[in-house]
Amino acid sequence: MEVENTFRQWKKQCLNKVDLSKKGSVDEDIANIVSMLNDSEKYFTTSSCSGRIIVIDGVSDCLDVQKQNCSWLFVTHQKCQKMDLVSSLERSCGDVVFKFEPFILHVQCQQLEDAQLLHSVAIHSGFRNSGITIGKKGKIIMVWAVRSTHCLEVPLSRKGQVLVSADYIEFLAEVANQKMVENLRRIERFFECLQSAMHHEGLHCRSTRVMEEKSVYRRRRKRTQESRGESCEGSRDTSLSDEDNGLDNGMDLFSL
Amino acid sequence: MEVENTFRQWKKQCLNKVDLSKKGSVDEDIANIVSMLNDSEKYFTTSSCSGRIIVIDGVSDCLDVQKQNCSWLFVTHQKCQKMDLVSSLERSCGDVVFKFEPFILHVQCQQLEDAQLLHSVAIHSGFRNSGITIGKKGKIIMVWAVRSTHCLEVPLSRKGQVLVSADYIEFLAEVANQKMVENLRRIERFFECLQSAMHHEGLHCRSTRVMEEKSVYRRRRKRTQESRGESCEGSRDTSLSDEDNGLDNGMDLFSL
Repeated sequence: MEVENTFRQWKKQCLNKVDLSKKGSVDEDIANIVSMLNDSEKYFTTSSCSGRIIVIDGVSDCLDVQKQNCSWLFVTHQKCQKMDLVSSLERSCGDVVFKFEPFILHVQCQQLEDAQLLHSVAIHSGFRNSGITIGKKGKIIMVWAVRSTHCLEVPLSRKGQVLVSADYIEFLAEVANQKMVENLRRIERFFECLQSAMHHEGLHCRSTRVMEEKSVYRRRRKRTQESRGESCEGSRDTSLSDEDNGLDNGMDLFSL
Repeated sequence: MEVENTFRQWKKQCLNKVDLSKKGSVDEDIANIVSMLNDSEKYFTTSSCSGRIIVIDGVSDCLDVQKQNCSWLFVTHQKCQKMDLVSSLERSCGDVVFKFEPFILHVQCQQLEDAQLLHSVAIHSGFRNSGITIGKKGKIIMVWAVRSTHCLEVPLSRKGQVLVSADYIEFLAEVANQKMVENLRRIERFFECLQSAMHHEGLHCRSTRVMEEKSVYRRRRKRTQESRGESCEGSRDTSLSDEDNGLDNGMDLFSL
């Protein structure tokens, strides 16, 4: 009972906080997933991104422009056009990097078994490298992240000098857009799988308390000046057996 | 007691298995970390890679060459030379991708608190996106992965046609080598941190049983024909607050 109360408090505090993301709101393509989780008593999302194509400018050699203005040259959560990238490069002064980053989701869960349920949904939807993070002893905190395979991280220029051709940039846009389409396909699969799992677990019904929390959630305000890092995390499931990815560990949907 | 026996059995079985990796042995730069973990009763490694630079050939449009021969054009766990990449490209026929993938480690842990200890070591060593995977109910299985920030994933050619210049390839080798150096620095920090944590927890002493298991581990045989996937998993800690990475959740070293 104490655990439930503490969790409820954390949820309220978290959803009441200012949205610290650059965009300041939940991405359209995953709004249904985020809502479904926040409507449940057992979960709340702490950060999410449906997937994005970004062009950033490394600031190490960039002395004459404000860091904040220089860092982010372009960002989209949809497909990109060759011209988006070309015009980004024209505004660059440092070391420009082009990135595709897939869907990511962090969810705090009430109990370990709630995290395990989400984990199995992720595995079954093709997000094989999801994991659980557990906090200090005595505090039952579970943060769960959906991570997908394949990113893109491509250096395009050095000290303001573009190192690739226009044809290459066009090709890069194509590759990133293909990854975006595949990413969206997985998001849809994830939503369907989550819906079915939550229905199965009886987690789809809303209580009055959850409705209250949702109205708090809607009051989240945008804060645009928040700075974010620009690194891309990478690990390989290339070197992992199914066992390492939890598939062999009995992560069967609904069997947890 | 039952948990300990089961874990001991899993460990024996795992270390007795044929090494399924392409290389067939533990990478030199992380041999001390892998040994230290396998020498402890609480842990065993299920897969690891110190970090690598690879050039792979997408096989979708590659009809006239055997898939296995075509896939991996180049791999090194050390720095690369421009010529390594150029000669790889000469042997390509499909869609070539250049990748840098940092240190990764999967460790099965006896208890949740053992996984939490390793998790805090990872956080303190700069591997912010580590996570715990938990298996089926009743089976206490924890697989823990060290994941580092920043990978590289750069398409170089399409259908055998190289799309980038020699200068760009040289630059790419430089960038990857810088990442390799930073990666090694983190591995050293991780080793020191792990050593100190295990000393603190009294996990550094070897029992006769563990010594037996180690001799089994040494008998691992190489199997070179094992195929591995070639995808790069990506997620952003760019969009995560410290809280999401477990830093704010009280993941203080030795306080678990």
